[in-house]
Amino acid sequence: MSIEERVAQLEARLRAAEDQLEIIGLLNTYGPAVDSGSSDAAAALWTKDGIYDAGGVTRFTPETLVAMYNDTGHQELIHEGSSHLTATPRIEVRGDEAAAVAYSFVVRRRGEEWFLMRAAINHWQLVRTPTGWRIKERFNRVLDGSDGSHAVMKRALQQSTAA
Amino acid sequence: MSIEERVAQLEARLRAAEDQLEIIGLLNTYGPAVDSGSSDAAAALWTKDGIYDAGGVTRFTPETLVAMYNDTGHQELIHEGSSHLTATPRIEVRGDEAAAVAYSFVVRRRGEEWFLMRAAINHWQLVRTPTGWRIKERFNRVLDGSDGSHAVMKRALQQSTAA
Amino acid sequence: MSIEERVAQLEARLRAAEDQLEIIGLLNTYGPAVDSGSSDAAAALWTKDGIYDAGGVTRFTPETLVAMYNDTGHQELIHEGSSHLTATPRIEVRGDEAAAVAYSFVVRRRGEEWFLMRAAINHWQLVRTPTGWRIKERFNRVLDGSDGSHAVMKRALQQSTAA
Repeated sequence: MSIEERVAQLEARLRAAEDQLEIIGLLNTYGPAVDSGSSDAAAALWTKDGIYDAGGVTRFTPETLVAMYNDTGHQELIHEGSSHLTATPRIEVRGDEAAAVAYSFVVRRRGEEWFLMRAAINHWQLVRTPTGWRIKERFNRVLDGSDGSHAVMKRALQQSTAA
Repeated sequence: MSIEERVAQLEARLRAAEDQLEIIGLLNTYGPAVDSGSSDAAAALWTKDGIYDAGGVTRFTPETLVAMYNDTGHQELIHEGSSHLTATPRIEVRGDEAAAVAYSFVVRRRGEEWFLMRAAINHWQLVRTPTGWRIKERFNRVLDGSDGSHAVMKRALQQSTAA
Repeated sequence: MSIEERVAQLEARLRAAEDQLEIIGLLNTYGPAVDSGSSDAAAALWTKDGIYDAGGVTRFTPETLVAMYNDTGHQELIHEGSSHLTATPRIEVRGDEAAAVAYSFVVRRRGEEWFLMRAAINHWQLVRTPTGWRIKERFNRVLDGSDGSHAVMKRALQQSTAA
């Protein structure tokens, strides 16, 4: 391989590594944003037409996410003391798209201790935009032992390894 | 240094960084695999002669791991709702071998909450294979305050920093 | 761009990626060090004039940290069984300085289970030294729902994105 070709290959490989690090940073911005009431900053992690499907009746868009974060339930939670914890993801980058899978937890204060009020599996679809990586879809299912929750994990692992 | 030498150095350094990212991905594939009952996929994270030493009477090989994951105890756990959570590891890559140290937790649903039914420290020995990084040994000890559990942490830190 | 310029750019970008990975490793050395009673190794993660501000009356220096880790309270904790867990950080590298934000948890054994005896948000200021990255300041506030704890998250996110 010529030096020219080796440099081009290094540039492509380095970009893929930087992409992974940027996505790790993006996913770990979510917690401090929602736990501090920075609702707009949290919603801005998604593309404008992005979706957060957490398994309830609503598939949230960035706009409805802001409303949800500003609502009583979320505000009570963050004023009690909370951590929306994203575990380290497994990430696969494919050009300008990426997929990530990781557990997430909602940790809430109760007296002198904290407890896990929610534990879930997540499958993110991400896209590269002119201003960096953004979430296209976050698909989240609570860890209730159901076939549905197991299916999210299986789908995420297959998509990743098939890439 | 000549351009040729600088490019060669970049190639070696980038490979080490990619190795770390790949190992982070490998270790974080374990949870979604075992929690969804994908027993073969979980066992395939090890080399064929790999070992999972979790401190009991059995040092598991990939074959006996599959049997364990398909057994009643594990199946009850994952149908109740569980997360085999691997914390972010500290990784040291040395050519075609690597070591990692991190906590791990088994999170289990109980009614409307989740609790930590196991907390442990892990010391992984990893090897590069033709199909990517694999686990040669996972040495895992429960966090019971014993000298043995502390020794795993000390050994992992020393091995890492000595590299 | 000439090959010379492209190689120089690759060198700078790769160093920033390696910096992130090194900082992830540094922050995840803390837990196994303090949980195994390796007090000196834990304190050595800071610069000599570094500070750990955990919100109490004392702003710890590396010297006073060692004394604290060797004290009765910490020793009882680690002999009961504990994990000082650092969640995956969001990191921003700016030349020879860096900032990181992440949750941290003190997980403690109680009978057959483990519980979260502390949950906090952290904002680290890091510096590159001749022997690698070190902590200049770790600013830590418990997740008690207070404006103060929210302010740490907001400040950390703003500083990061402003870089």
